[in-house]
Amino acid sequence: MKLQSYALGEWYTPPLDGSPIKDASTGETIATVSSDGLDFKAMLEYGRTVGAPALRKMTFHERAIMLKNVGLALTKAKDELYELSYQTGATKSDTWVDVDGGISTFFVYSSKGRREMPNQPWYVDGDVEQLSRGGTFLGQHIMVPRRGVAVHIDAFNFPVWGMMEKLAPTLLAGMPAIVKPASSTAHLTEKAFKYMIDSGVLPEGAIQLICGRTGDLFDHLTCQDVVTFTGSASTAHYLQKHPAFTEKAVPFVAECDSLNASILGLDVTKDSPEFDLFIKEVVREMTAKAGQKCTAIRRTIVPRNLVADVKDALIARLGKTTVGDPRAEGVRMGPLASLDQREEVINRINDLKEYCDVVLDGTTEFDVSGGDYKAGAFLKPTLLYCDAPLETPEVHSIEAFGPASTIMPYDTTEDAITLANMGEGSLVASLFTYDPEIVSDVVMGIGAYHGRLVVLDRTSAGESTGHGSPLPHMKHGGPGRAGGGEEQGGIRAVKHYMQRIAIQGSPDVLTKVTNKWVSGSKELEMDAHPFRKTFDEIKIGDTLHTKERTVTLEDVEHFANFTGDTFYAHMDEEAAAANPIFGARVAHGYLLLSFAAGLFVDPAPGPVLANVGLEGLKFTKPVYPGDTIKVRLVCKQRTARMNEDFGEVRWDVTVTNQDGDECANYELLTHNTRVQ
Amino acid sequence: MKLQSYALGEWYTPPLDGSPIKDASTGETIATVSSDGLDFKAMLEYGRTVGAPALRKMTFHERAIMLKNVGLALTKAKDELYELSYQTGATKSDTWVDVDGGISTFFVYSSKGRREMPNQPWYVDGDVEQLSRGGTFLGQHIMVPRRGVAVHIDAFNFPVWGMMEKLAPTLLAGMPAIVKPASSTAHLTEKAFKYMIDSGVLPEGAIQLICGRTGDLFDHLTCQDVVTFTGSASTAHYLQKHPAFTEKAVPFVAECDSLNASILGLDVTKDSPEFDLFIKEVVREMTAKAGQKCTAIRRTIVPRNLVADVKDALIARLGKTTVGDPRAEGVRMGPLASLDQREEVINRINDLKEYCDVVLDGTTEFDVSGGDYKAGAFLKPTLLYCDAPLETPEVHSIEAFGPASTIMPYDTTEDAITLANMGEGSLVASLFTYDPEIVSDVVMGIGAYHGRLVVLDRTSAGESTGHGSPLPHMKHGGPGRAGGGEEQGGIRAVKHYMQRIAIQGSPDVLTKVTNKWVSGSKELEMDAHPFRKTFDEIKIGDTLHTKERTVTLEDVEHFANFTGDTFYAHMDEEAAAANPIFGARVAHGYLLLSFAAGLFVDPAPGPVLANVGLEGLKFTKPVYPGDTIKVRLVCKQRTARMNEDFGEVRWDVTVTNQDGDECANYELLTHNTRVQ
Repeated sequence: MKLQSYALGEWYTPPLDGSPIKDASTGETIATVSSDGLDFKAMLEYGRTVGAPALRKMTFHERAIMLKNVGLALTKAKDELYELSYQTGATKSDTWVDVDGGISTFFVYSSKGRREMPNQPWYVDGDVEQLSRGGTFLGQHIMVPRRGVAVHIDAFNFPVWGMMEKLAPTLLAGMPAIVKPASSTAHLTEKAFKYMIDSGVLPEGAIQLICGRTGDLFDHLTCQDVVTFTGSASTAHYLQKHPAFTEKAVPFVAECDSLNASILGLDVTKDSPEFDLFIKEVVREMTAKAGQKCTAIRRTIVPRNLVADVKDALIARLGKTTVGDPRAEGVRMGPLASLDQREEVINRINDLKEYCDVVLDGTTEFDVSGGDYKAGAFLKPTLLYCDAPLETPEVHSIEAFGPASTIMPYDTTEDAITLANMGEGSLVASLFTYDPEIVSDVVMGIGAYHGRLVVLDRTSAGESTGHGSPLPHMKHGGPGRAGGGEEQGGIRAVKHYMQRIAIQGSPDVLTKVTNKWVSGSKELEMDAHPFRKTFDEIKIGDTLHTKERTVTLEDVEHFANFTGDTFYAHMDEEAAAANPIFGARVAHGYLLLSFAAGLFVDPAPGPVLANVGLEGLKFTKPVYPGDTIKVRLVCKQRTARMNEDFGEVRWDVTVTNQDGDECANYELLTHNTRVQ
Repeated sequence: MKLQSYALGEWYTPPLDGSPIKDASTGETIATVSSDGLDFKAMLEYGRTVGAPALRKMTFHERAIMLKNVGLALTKAKDELYELSYQTGATKSDTWVDVDGGISTFFVYSSKGRREMPNQPWYVDGDVEQLSRGGTFLGQHIMVPRRGVAVHIDAFNFPVWGMMEKLAPTLLAGMPAIVKPASSTAHLTEKAFKYMIDSGVLPEGAIQLICGRTGDLFDHLTCQDVVTFTGSASTAHYLQKHPAFTEKAVPFVAECDSLNASILGLDVTKDSPEFDLFIKEVVREMTAKAGQKCTAIRRTIVPRNLVADVKDALIARLGKTTVGDPRAEGVRMGPLASLDQREEVINRINDLKEYCDVVLDGTTEFDVSGGDYKAGAFLKPTLLYCDAPLETPEVHSIEAFGPASTIMPYDTTEDAITLANMGEGSLVASLFTYDPEIVSDVVMGIGAYHGRLVVLDRTSAGESTGHGSPLPHMKHGGPGRAGGGEEQGGIRAVKHYMQRIAIQGSPDVLTKVTNKWVSGSKELEMDAHPFRKTFDEIKIGDTLHTKERTVTLEDVEHFANFTGDTFYAHMDEEAAAANPIFGARVAHGYLLLSFAAGLFVDPAPGPVLANVGLEGLKFTKPVYPGDTIKVRLVCKQRTARMNEDFGEVRWDVTVTNQDGDECANYELLTHNTRVQ
C-alpha cells in the first residue's frame, strides 16, 4: 500500500513505491511512503490563497466549534486508529495517550477558544496604553492571523497527538497547515488525517499532508509562514541553518527531546508515600512508549542514603514489565519503532556504561512475549548508576532514546538542582516531596533550565497526569537542548500563529479596531434606555447618563445598620477623621454600587436577564455625606455566544460626584436576550 | 583618545589605537575604538556568576526603583551627552529623541515594573489552570530570570536610546547585560555608560561594555544567554548562522530596518487637516536623524488624484530644510554618520532611480551651512516617484538608509494595502485618514506584515508621538525584513529575558510557588479577626469564616426601595418566574455584596484603612428570599509598596448558601497599614 499525501485539496498517490514502513513487532512491511511528484511550492501557495482567507474570516469561536466537530469525527474512528497504532509498537495505554490525547487537545482548545478569546477574527492583546496626557493618543496591541502556512514537522512517536497538538492552536489562530509526519509511523497519521478531511468540517485548504520528504518546501517559505518542529536535536540543527530561518525571519519553533530528570526530595524516607509514587513514576516513564518519549525520565536523582532502596524497588518493579508484541496478552511494553532504533539505543547505552555501573541490563536478547527478538525491535529496560554525577557531564548529555535511565545520588538540594540543570535545558522535571521549602528551592533553582516541573506528593498524585504528559493547558518545550520553543500552554500557543501589531491612534480609532469601547470615544445618543435593547440591537458606545442622587448621612447610617457593615470610617466621626485616606466619615463603597444600580437599572422586564458579574472596580475618590452622585453607563463590549439565545454585554460604569470627579469605575456584565 | 570597555567590574583601555571615530560634520578624529585583549569568555562568566545572582534576588519593584535612579543620574549628565551627540551628526531634536528618549524608557519601565509586576523576584504568568476534576492537581505558569547574560548589539543611529531600550527590560527581568555599541558612535554610548556605572546604583556585574568587536564572544554563549540585535538585515543574517543560534537554541531577537510605508487615506482631500498632517510627518521622517532611522518613511503611498498636490507640498517643505553642522545656527538636518554611509545611500538612490522618476534630487554637492561638503557626510533630501509600484518589487526592497523616500500612487484601499505589504515585513506603517472604515480595512489588511501602525487624524495628531518613534509601551519590531523580533511593548519585553516554566502540583504547592493563595489550599487557623492584623503580620491563607445571615423577602424589598433598584426579578413574582435564569424572585447581587461585608467587616479602627477595589466578581448561583448565606474571607495576596507605610492585601471572598453552594466569588482589595 502506498501512503497518500493530500495536496491542493486532493489525495495524491506517488508514482513509485517509496521507503517501506514496517510493523515494529513483526518486521512486516505495512505500507510505503514517498512524496515524489508533489509540487511543494504550489501547496504553500494553495494554503495561502485558499485556506488562509477562509480561516481568517471565521471568528475564534467559529474556529473553536470547528475543532470540536473534528474531534468528534475522530472519536468515531478510534477503533481503527488503535489497530494501526499497535503496528507502530504502541500498547493500548500508549495509544490512549496518542489517540485520545490528540482528540482531547482539540476539545481543550475548542473550549479555551470560546472561553478565553473573543468571538471575532482577531485578538485584542493586553490593555489600552495611555500614551498622552490628554488621552487623545492611545495605544493597543492586537493580533491577527499570519497570512502564510504553518508547516508542522512531527516526530515518529506520537503520530496522532503530534499532529493534533500543533493543528489545534494553528487552526484556532486562523492559519492553514501542512502536516509532515515522520515516515516510520505516517500510516497512522494518514488515517487520522483522512478522517479529519472526511468530516467535511474544515474549510478547503485548511490542512494538507505530506507523507514523505519535504523536498524544496523550505525554499519557498516567506515571512508569513511558520515552521513548528518536533524531533531530534540534530535534525533541528540541520533545518535551522536553512536561509528561511537565518535570512527571512521565518519563525522556527523547535521541541526536541532532552535528558529529563526526576528528583526524590531529601525529606522523603523509604516509608513515605512519595517514595512509592516516585518508583511508580520512574518505571512508568521508562516503559511507556518503550521510553521513546521526549519527556521520559532519563536521570533519576536520588538522596544518597536512599540509593540502595531505590535500586531495589526499581529492579523489582521493572522485572514485572512484560515486553512483547502489544497485541499479545499481558504485554506491558511494546517494541521500539524499528530495528535501527534498537541498535541506536543499545549503542548509546553502551556509551553510558563507560561512565556508569549497570544495575539492570536490558540490552541482550531475551524471550519476547508473542514475538521474535530478531524480527521486532524489542528491548528490555536498562537501569544505570553514576556515583559522581556532578563530575560526569557525559551522563547529562548522552541520550539513549529508549527504556533506559541513570540513577544519580545527591547530598544537598542545591546539588540536586545543579544535577538537573546539567542537562543544559530540559522539557520537564519532576519532584517528589512533601516539604514546601524544598518545592520553593527547586522551582527557583531549576526554573530557568526547564519548561515544566511536576511536583508530586500524596495530595496530588491521585489526580496527577504524571511527569511525562504534556497537557494542552501547560506549555510544552524547554530551553537549550530541548530546542528553545514553546508549544501548547493554552492560548499562548495560538499566538505563535498570529502577528502582534501595536495600534496607536485616537480613542475612536481604537474602539473601531478593537470592537471594545475605549474611554474617550464618542458616546452614542440613545433613543431608549439601553436596558430596553436586545443584544442584537445594542451598539458599542450606547450611553446612558442617569439623574443625580444625593447621599445623606442618614443613608450611610441606615445602610450600615441594615447590612451590619458598621466600619468606623462610616460611623465614627472622630476615628474616621484620623483615617489617612478619608479624613472624615464616608459612604460605603457598596452603598455607592447599590445606589448606582438604583440610578441606572430600568426595572421592567426586558432584554437584560441578569447581572452576572462585575470586574475591575476601583474606588477612586471617597463619597462623603452630602455629595451628589450620578452615573454614566456605556456599552463597552458585546460577546455573542455560539448556539445560545443570549449574549454577554459588558458595560463601563462610572460614578461621578457633584464636581464631576470620578468616584468609582467598573465593568458590569449582563446577559441579554438576542431577540425581543 | 582610546575608548574604554568595561569588563569584570573594571574599566579597560586597549593596548593599541583601534579604528578612528570621526566627527560626522568635520571629519576630525574624536577617538579610537578597539576591544583587543578583552577576555570575552571571562566577561560572560562574570556576568553569570556575579551580576546574575545579585539581580536575581532583587524583586521587580526593587529593580524598578534601580532603573529610576539610574535614569535620574543620567538626567544630570544630559548637557555633556548632548555635546557628544552633535559630533555624531545629530541635531538637538535628534538628540532629544536619543538621550531624553533613552532616559524616559528607564522611567516608563520603572513605573510599569511597579504597577504591573509583583514585588517579588519572579513573575506569575496567567491564571491557575484546573487540570483535574477534584482540584487536587493544578497548573500555573511562572517566569524566572534566565541565568545567563543578555548580549546587546546596538545600532549606530541611537547610541543612548539604543542601549537603554534594551537594558531597561533586561535589568527589570533580573538579567545582567553586555552592551556592544556600533563603533561609529560608541563614544557617546561609552559616556552614558560611565554615568550609569558612576551612579553606583547597579549591583556589580549587572552591566559590562564592549567598545569594539565581539571577538569569540558568541562561541561561549549557552542556552541561558540571549542576544538582542539592532542593525542591518545583512549583519543579522550573518550572525544568525552562528551555531549558538542554530544549535544551542540561544534566543536571537532581531530588529532590522525596513521599508516602512505611510498611507494617505482615500477619504482625504487637499483641504483636509489629514493632508497637512501627512506632509509634515513625511518630511519629519525623511529629515529627522538625516533619515537614518529604521522606522523612517521610505514609501509614501498616496491616492492617485493627490499625487501632484503631495509632490508640490513635499517639495515646498523639504526645500526649507537647512542641512549642515548641527552646531551651526538654523540647521534643521545634520550629516549622515560617515562619508561611507553617504556613498552607500547615494548608490542605493541611484539604484532606485532605475525604477523611479526623480522629484527632488539631493545627491549632488551643495553649500553646507557651517560645514564643508567634502569633509562631512552631508546629503540633501531626495524624493522619487514610481508610477506603477504594484508591478515594481524593486522599490519595495531597495533601501536608501538616508533622507530619501519614494511616492507611490494607488487607486483602491486594497491596492494601498498590497503596496504596504510588498515591503515583506516592516517595523511600522502610518495611516492618515478620518474614515473609520478605512482604519478597519487597513488594520486587518496590513496587520500581519507590520509591527506597529500609527493612525493619525485631526483628533490625535496634537498629542501624537508620530510615525517614527518607538515607545516603551508599544512593541517595536516587525516580521520578515524587519527581523522578526519584538522589543519593548511594556512587560512583554521583560519576558524575553525570563524563562517560562509550567508548574503542576497540589493547590498548596502552587500557593507556595506563586505567593498567592490558590483555591483548595490550606486555610490557616486565625487567633484574631484578619482585619486586626497589620500588613506585616497577615499571612497568605489566613481565613475567616463568618456567621450566617438569612436573607428575607423584606430585606429584598427594603433594599430595592432604599436604593431604587426595583428590577423586576427582585420585585415582581410573576415576571421573575418567567426569567430563564432565576425562575423566581431573587436577592440583588449588590444586597449580597453588602450583607457579605456586614458579615466580615470588623468595625473598630485597625490596620485596614479602606476597601479600594474589587475584582473578578461572579454571581454563580441566585440567592432566593429565605436562603441563609455565610462568607469565607481568605488572604490571597500581599503586595508591599516600596517606600509606603501601607501595603495592598487581596482577599478571596466566597459567599455560600445553606447548602454549601457557592453564590458569589470575588477578590477584595484593601490597604493595610504596615505597623500597628
